[in-house]
Amino acid sequence: MENKRVVLASRPKGWVTEENFRLETAPLPKPAEGEVLVKNLWLSLDPYMRGRMDDVKSYVKGVDIGEVMVGQTVGEVIESRNEKFKRGDKVLTQLGWQLYGSAKEASKVQEGPAPLSYYLGCLGMPGMTAYFGLKEIGQPKADETVVVSAASGAVGSVVGQLAKSWGCRAVGIAGGAEKCGYVTGELGFDACVDYKAGNLHRDLKEACPKGVDVYFDNVGGETLDTLLRLMNVHSRIIVCGLISEYNATQPYGYRNMRSVLVNRIKMQGMIVFDWRSRYGEALKALAGMHAQGKLKTRESIVEGLENAPRGLIALLKGGNFGKQLVKLV
Amino acid sequence: MENKRVVLASRPKGWVTEENFRLETAPLPKPAEGEVLVKNLWLSLDPYMRGRMDDVKSYVKGVDIGEVMVGQTVGEVIESRNEKFKRGDKVLTQLGWQLYGSAKEASKVQEGPAPLSYYLGCLGMPGMTAYFGLKEIGQPKADETVVVSAASGAVGSVVGQLAKSWGCRAVGIAGGAEKCGYVTGELGFDACVDYKAGNLHRDLKEACPKGVDVYFDNVGGETLDTLLRLMNVHSRIIVCGLISEYNATQPYGYRNMRSVLVNRIKMQGMIVFDWRSRYGEALKALAGMHAQGKLKTRESIVEGLENAPRGLIALLKGGNFGKQLVKLV
Repeated sequence: MENKRVVLASRPKGWVTEENFRLETAPLPKPAEGEVLVKNLWLSLDPYMRGRMDDVKSYVKGVDIGEVMVGQTVGEVIESRNEKFKRGDKVLTQLGWQLYGSAKEASKVQEGPAPLSYYLGCLGMPGMTAYFGLKEIGQPKADETVVVSAASGAVGSVVGQLAKSWGCRAVGIAGGAEKCGYVTGELGFDACVDYKAGNLHRDLKEACPKGVDVYFDNVGGETLDTLLRLMNVHSRIIVCGLISEYNATQPYGYRNMRSVLVNRIKMQGMIVFDWRSRYGEALKALAGMHAQGKLKTRESIVEGLENAPRGLIALLKGGNFGKQLVKLV
Repeated sequence: MENKRVVLASRPKGWVTEENFRLETAPLPKPAEGEVLVKNLWLSLDPYMRGRMDDVKSYVKGVDIGEVMVGQTVGEVIESRNEKFKRGDKVLTQLGWQLYGSAKEASKVQEGPAPLSYYLGCLGMPGMTAYFGLKEIGQPKADETVVVSAASGAVGSVVGQLAKSWGCRAVGIAGGAEKCGYVTGELGFDACVDYKAGNLHRDLKEACPKGVDVYFDNVGGETLDTLLRLMNVHSRIIVCGLISEYNATQPYGYRNMRSVLVNRIKMQGMIVFDWRSRYGEALKALAGMHAQGKLKTRESIVEGLENAPRGLIALLKGGNFGKQLVKLV
């Protein structure tokens, strides 16, 4: 048995290309005392990975050239040198883009109530991002209007469903009629605006007749700048992702910051790790919604580790539809 | 006796000019039942007045053409038709740019512990702006670094002195060596950076070796964009004024918003009126500091109502030094 892994071959200039990655084979890792050897089943692809491919200061250090790409995985323990785990346990780990890995830190997940892959999506980091960002920064009140961009995505879809369950008007922004139809039809948002239609300001204004009280921003750039014009007095903006900027060689110039003053907007950046100690609370809330059929999700699955680069590129260009995953086995 | 008043003659395009105002005479107003007739002694000039000269949506409606310019005043009651006030009472009102006015709403102020003009500055709206913005949005902890722009001004000077009294490192930004010398020498800030020296980023970096935890922003534009590069993880920005934008015909394009996400910055717009119900608390705190000699202030006085336009223009161009006032009598 040998390991396969995808390493960072070069740093992207602007858009990521497949040449930025290299597929390698390597010997199977040997777990040290206290570690478990895990066979990865699912790899999560997320927008933050774009940032790790750069060499600039971000929340954490970037990936070095030649190093395995980072990423969250769900897998099965095939050898345990840690008494808390046994062969066959299903675990959530940070083993990155590879088929096998030795993990010091892992958390057990329960197959059955939800498919394993959900622990990378609506019941995992994206779901918790939605939960803490909306609840703690957005603080939405019943009847307020909550707008979320990338609404059919892993985070956005949970934001809107949480907003609905808390009594708010939920308005999504997504690219194309198919995604918008899914957001209103399947996910139950009150409205969804297609940013590709080219009338974002006008269409959002129509979809939000009482203005916007909470904007959960996953994209930044022109969308955020447009929302600034629609925010109500004392509204809140959760800055969760700037996917529109990740591939730009020049940062976007925001023109509507005056609105922050005039409307006394609170705008706050967030990273889910800051709520690490409260993950249990979020998992309980989200699993409860899922059990009641109130947390719907959609997965966009790429088959095989060798196709992970293609999957990430699609995700960054908005070509995926739902939570982006790589099925490794 | 007749009244003199300054009305808005035309809306400025870019910078305000003296031609945007007109000095008029008018009959003395007659107080209605419940009102007091006030002879104004001091008129406050403040950056927000620039916004009221425009016809765009702001916190409140702009001044109409031909209408008396808005502004806070301290004056003396010369006729009372309200049992709460008697002739000779000193009152704080919103009578605008005129020598006499009839006021429905007024609050008594006490001459003696502090000069009357202080109720328009460090013990008035600017002082309260500093107090609530820094305390409630900035939430500075001891040993944190607090930066404030327009540091020698009415709001900025109080921000820095409050920061010092709460155990923080206070760093000012001001224009020119004389103002900077006053900020560190007289007001007791730890450092002050001269933005006119042309090395704002480098000089601020040097003045803030541990980065910036709280930025109290009175100016916006390039200064705010530069600060975004220096903010620490979980830092706070109080957006209190965008004086650099008020006279621009094009809004500034902010390039460093990525920092809001990466550093999880909270950025919040503020207007002091939102804390109206707590003015008593702020006045008590500020008057206490003043009584102990810990709240120093400097006034920039223009003599005569006819010179108010010149005073406002100087203020908007940064030509004043300290709280800008018009002495009416």
